[in-house]
Amino acid sequence: MTKEIPVAHQLDPLLNPRSIAVIGASDKSSRMGGMPLDLLAHFRFGGNVYPVNPKYEEAFGYRCYPDIESLPESPDVVVLAIPAAEVTSMLERCERKGVRAAIVYASGFAEAGVTGAALQDRLEEFTAKSAMVVAGPNCAGFANLNLNAHTSFAIKTFKSSPPQTERGRVTLLTQSGNVCATVFPLLRELGVPVSHFINTGNEADLEFSEYLEFLAQDEDTECVVGYLEQLRDGRRFIKVARDFARRDKPLILLKAGDSEKGSEAVRSHTSALAGNQALYRAAFRQLNVMAADDFQQMADLAWLTQFRQRAGGPRVGIVTVSGAVGAILADKLIGGGLEVPTLPETVQRALRTAVSDYGMVTNPVDVTGNIVADISSAQTVLSQMATTEAVDTVVIYAPSTVLDRMADTLVEVSRAHNRLFVVIDTGGATCHQRLAVAGIPVFSDISRAARALIPYCHWLARRESVKRWDLLCGEEAAEPALESKAQVADLNELQAKQLLAGFGVTPVPEKAAADETAAVAAAETLGYPVVLKVLSPDIPHKTEIGGVALNLADESAVRNSYREVTERARKQAPRARLQGVLVQKMSKGIAELIVGTTRDPVFGATLTVGLGGVLTEIYKDVSHRVLPIDAEIAREMLHELKSFVLLDGFRGKEKADVDAACIAIAGMSRAAMQLGSAVQEMEVNPLQLKAGTGGVAALDALILPPEAAATPHPGD
Amino acid sequence: MTKEIPVAHQLDPLLNPRSIAVIGASDKSSRMGGMPLDLLAHFRFGGNVYPVNPKYEEAFGYRCYPDIESLPESPDVVVLAIPAAEVTSMLERCERKGVRAAIVYASGFAEAGVTGAALQDRLEEFTAKSAMVVAGPNCAGFANLNLNAHTSFAIKTFKSSPPQTERGRVTLLTQSGNVCATVFPLLRELGVPVSHFINTGNEADLEFSEYLEFLAQDEDTECVVGYLEQLRDGRRFIKVARDFARRDKPLILLKAGDSEKGSEAVRSHTSALAGNQALYRAAFRQLNVMAADDFQQMADLAWLTQFRQRAGGPRVGIVTVSGAVGAILADKLIGGGLEVPTLPETVQRALRTAVSDYGMVTNPVDVTGNIVADISSAQTVLSQMATTEAVDTVVIYAPSTVLDRMADTLVEVSRAHNRLFVVIDTGGATCHQRLAVAGIPVFSDISRAARALIPYCHWLARRESVKRWDLLCGEEAAEPALESKAQVADLNELQAKQLLAGFGVTPVPEKAAADETAAVAAAETLGYPVVLKVLSPDIPHKTEIGGVALNLADESAVRNSYREVTERARKQAPRARLQGVLVQKMSKGIAELIVGTTRDPVFGATLTVGLGGVLTEIYKDVSHRVLPIDAEIAREMLHELKSFVLLDGFRGKEKADVDAACIAIAGMSRAAMQLGSAVQEMEVNPLQLKAGTGGVAALDALILPPEAAATPHPGD
Repeated sequence: MTKEIPVAHQLDPLLNPRSIAVIGASDKSSRMGGMPLDLLAHFRFGGNVYPVNPKYEEAFGYRCYPDIESLPESPDVVVLAIPAAEVTSMLERCERKGVRAAIVYASGFAEAGVTGAALQDRLEEFTAKSAMVVAGPNCAGFANLNLNAHTSFAIKTFKSSPPQTERGRVTLLTQSGNVCATVFPLLRELGVPVSHFINTGNEADLEFSEYLEFLAQDEDTECVVGYLEQLRDGRRFIKVARDFARRDKPLILLKAGDSEKGSEAVRSHTSALAGNQALYRAAFRQLNVMAADDFQQMADLAWLTQFRQRAGGPRVGIVTVSGAVGAILADKLIGGGLEVPTLPETVQRALRTAVSDYGMVTNPVDVTGNIVADISSAQTVLSQMATTEAVDTVVIYAPSTVLDRMADTLVEVSRAHNRLFVVIDTGGATCHQRLAVAGIPVFSDISRAARALIPYCHWLARRESVKRWDLLCGEEAAEPALESKAQVADLNELQAKQLLAGFGVTPVPEKAAADETAAVAAAETLGYPVVLKVLSPDIPHKTEIGGVALNLADESAVRNSYREVTERARKQAPRARLQGVLVQKMSKGIAELIVGTTRDPVFGATLTVGLGGVLTEIYKDVSHRVLPIDAEIAREMLHELKSFVLLDGFRGKEKADVDAACIAIAGMSRAAMQLGSAVQEMEVNPLQLKAGTGGVAALDALILPPEAAATPHPGD
Repeated sequence: MTKEIPVAHQLDPLLNPRSIAVIGASDKSSRMGGMPLDLLAHFRFGGNVYPVNPKYEEAFGYRCYPDIESLPESPDVVVLAIPAAEVTSMLERCERKGVRAAIVYASGFAEAGVTGAALQDRLEEFTAKSAMVVAGPNCAGFANLNLNAHTSFAIKTFKSSPPQTERGRVTLLTQSGNVCATVFPLLRELGVPVSHFINTGNEADLEFSEYLEFLAQDEDTECVVGYLEQLRDGRRFIKVARDFARRDKPLILLKAGDSEKGSEAVRSHTSALAGNQALYRAAFRQLNVMAADDFQQMADLAWLTQFRQRAGGPRVGIVTVSGAVGAILADKLIGGGLEVPTLPETVQRALRTAVSDYGMVTNPVDVTGNIVADISSAQTVLSQMATTEAVDTVVIYAPSTVLDRMADTLVEVSRAHNRLFVVIDTGGATCHQRLAVAGIPVFSDISRAARALIPYCHWLARRESVKRWDLLCGEEAAEPALESKAQVADLNELQAKQLLAGFGVTPVPEKAAADETAAVAAAETLGYPVVLKVLSPDIPHKTEIGGVALNLADESAVRNSYREVTERARKQAPRARLQGVLVQKMSKGIAELIVGTTRDPVFGATLTVGLGGVLTEIYKDVSHRVLPIDAEIAREMLHELKSFVLLDGFRGKEKADVDAACIAIAGMSRAAMQLGSAVQEMEVNPLQLKAGTGGVAALDALILPPEAAATPHPGD
């Protein structure tokens, strides 16, 4: 990590406050207005604390003030523990006092019907013009554990969790106060030192990605673990997540909404638009965000990232004293996309000198309980696993006394090599702390270990590729190069393909023909057999209206078809502007792709690729990316498809020209980035792949401006 | 459960021993021969204990005997804590003494190379002719917790787990001593009362299903939770699992070997043949075995089954005080195949009277923290959820004090209705025990709750369908009806289809023709166009050798093709017996299935169905069943296919005749059952489905006797 010169950030008063006021203060711990004061007193916050309430002289040992105006200074942050209806006018008073940050507890805004929405509108009007930063509403407040600065009402959460002595290094950032309060104790039980406890509520002003921007630069935050229902600005998120990647700061997020019902619940919860979950998943992967799917896993991952000075990766060596556990672990890790490679012969031979006849040396390495009978055996096995180039990470299952007996050897081997060793002990050995200090995490449950290791090892493996993508992204693309949106709206099939051809997407040989004679001439130039398609910017789906004639072998076929397709188009689409026909050479390929770009409301330009048809529709066998991408990423996308085998010499067939397809897909990405918001959707369907190095041909293409966006996204 | 008259079972002396001898006894707790004695003394076993070792006078307070011959009685069970090489001769001495059961600790048998295999052979030779039952070798010993009868060396497991006062009702049965020792404490920590602790080791004599047969009848066993690497006799397992289903005794099993590497580890571990994991999964589902995939889930499921007097099922209502948790829970439960149905309007209206504006009443029902402000709201919500017919199970997320405040109401509502309520509390409320006593399980972790609820709710839902299958199974089918295996080996395509036609699998109209003239005659009778296929019992894959000619429109086409296909067959398969050609009417359908039966080495006759081709091969979109099945089960299988939509009016196409397909599939099952071991594989590929009620036609079929089994199983 490069050393940063700290720059005062606008969230500084909110997240690193030196003085805190509580409006609607109470002297009772049972009242919301008393809870942050109780916590501040309990944890001995070093700064100034100002309870504000005309009813009290004092609260929790702090002098109480009748109103915000009478405070002796302008506090860094003000906590508003008052009803929703009073919030905005109080914020106005705070602003006049010079307050720079506020936290609004009250619920009853956007999530609460018509009345609430009106209150939120008024609040947003205020924040839009004010320089003050406002957290919430519907926010449970924050904590800076390094400053003991508590602004939340999560009194039980902080008082019952294991106390923190170490300096906090991990930030918890959620869009739900409940989740924040649930995950915090899990982190603390694992001994994870927390720096900030942040929940964002309704995000009337400050949104998730803005907190992340602060945290990217925050020296007290080495890792962020968070919960997310929606991103209000996906492009901003992408930018800050790239910053996290450049700094090797792990980002662990749980995004709710996998199922329809989950999205529905999320929508209703913080009036969030859950968005396309498949795209979230793709974006997280692309940005190397560790995707969690429950709270314990979030905490386990945050804990595991503290061992990230260790070199590890996706190829796992398993050392076990139980064959059964070896099998179960292999099943789980492989099920999660990691590899458990068979060890090289030389390593197996070396292991066999230390492993009894009824053990196993291929990987999983089943050393049996005998391993601790002679500790030099353990030394041999662990050294081999620490040095073989066949694996990146070593997982050891050794319960109870077996682990205790081999602990010294393990620490010694681990000291000599920087490989990531992870231990699972279901029997409560006494050496856990000693191993952790030596850089060796110990899990007590096999499933929890696997569920943490899987995203973590993928994270380790993808650190370089996300940096490559970051470079590719550079700065955001400039605005559309096209003169006007109207021009994109008027593109017919030929023009769409010509536009894409400028980005390297080769079209099939074709010519427009305004009348029958021109069609025949075009066919003769191209060579028979040909295809005839009605040409109009207003008819995107030509086949449906009978506007396509295939395999025309001679002049008379062309003449007949010309009349037929134009006639049908006139009947079926009487208001469409007809521009004659498009004559294409019949083109033979061995596979077809559908390649589409969409401007997603959350993530902006995205690209989806699949083999089209039934495979895409029934099996959702598609790959998504946030743009831009290059040919190398296009290749990764194709390899992600289960149907990739169909391009790769399936059942003795020739291989398709995947290289050419990748170049065309990358061209689609460049086009989408340059056209920017002028285009809502582009689709090449099909992109025909020829055998060997025969190239590709875009047989049909469609470019839609924003208002025309109606075509469903393939496979979603 | 019907009351059983207990019948003395041959495993009685092993599992309910009244007297125990330990050969190779020691007076030290650190020695294997001392460990069971330590446990027996520690837990005060009420029966007679006989340490056997000439070196000692006494061990753990028990009088020690110099040899087995000098014992004053013939003990129920003898524990052999002696080296592998001495085991069989000692067993012979035990047999002469009248001992009826023995447990062999020693490893170094089948799992340990050539020497070990020889020892295991000798042991198996003994057990084959002896009436004595032998557990192991490579067995960690047993415990009957209700008798305090310990025969294991798992000293730490028993001494450090929470003590058991309640009568044991759940049996732990594993193929690994390690797993047994790992799961036992998890069960005890949940307060699950354990009856038997059994691990089967190498199963030289007693195998997994034999223990299950004992446990099915055992009154101390209401539920079995187990770990499995292989079944040595799948048919025996099916029979006993059906018995469990009839008795509504839950069976919870973890089967290792999901991945190739997992299988490899299992094979090496107890020299087990892991078998086809997809078939295990299908069989478990069919037998309503709850499939677990980790130890904690095994324990959680065993615990959950203790609430099975409660009516529950797969449609889940979620009541949550956190919108976020509602979303996450819905995602998880739906991801596991349960339903979270939207509640009926009337229920929503009733709920709205109790839920604030910013809550949610559709399901998940987000009651927000306000629910406990007025306890009558909780009463309304819980009563609605307890009575609506739209859900079977209700899951409540309420942490800490929120749960404590609504606990009385919950107990009251739950007392009035027998619906299964399951609570998740991540905040450590104090009412857990009170709720459990009232029949309401409480989980402390969202993921653990979901991972237990998913298999458990499926189990509740499938209790009736497995009983229906049990009736269908009846007794095992008689041996093959066919005269000899040779006859099955000689079936050509026509004969195979004729045989299947006898079971209701309609063939395409077709005729055999021994020469060109006969072929023309056949074509004219059937009507043009026709298909010609070379006919030979020795050429299963006719297309590959160019032995098929399609779409022949007239006599000359038939004549030409006859010469061509027979010529090619003679060249490509010179040793095949050619029997002329098969002439088929060209048949038009709208979809095709592949239906295959295989005699699996573990489960016997099984059936697989899929749409064939790429879908089956790339996406593994197939459904498996253990036979027999009927048309109703065939329909379930088709509905399991993702590609089922292609039969069901996809994109405005006509629906295929699924009814007729189900009848044909059930016919395949009857054929496989009747032909029994005379047939290894049968395949109808394709089974053509016509539109509407047009029926089906088997276009090609293949029946292979055991020795010819080489065709790979589709989709595996």
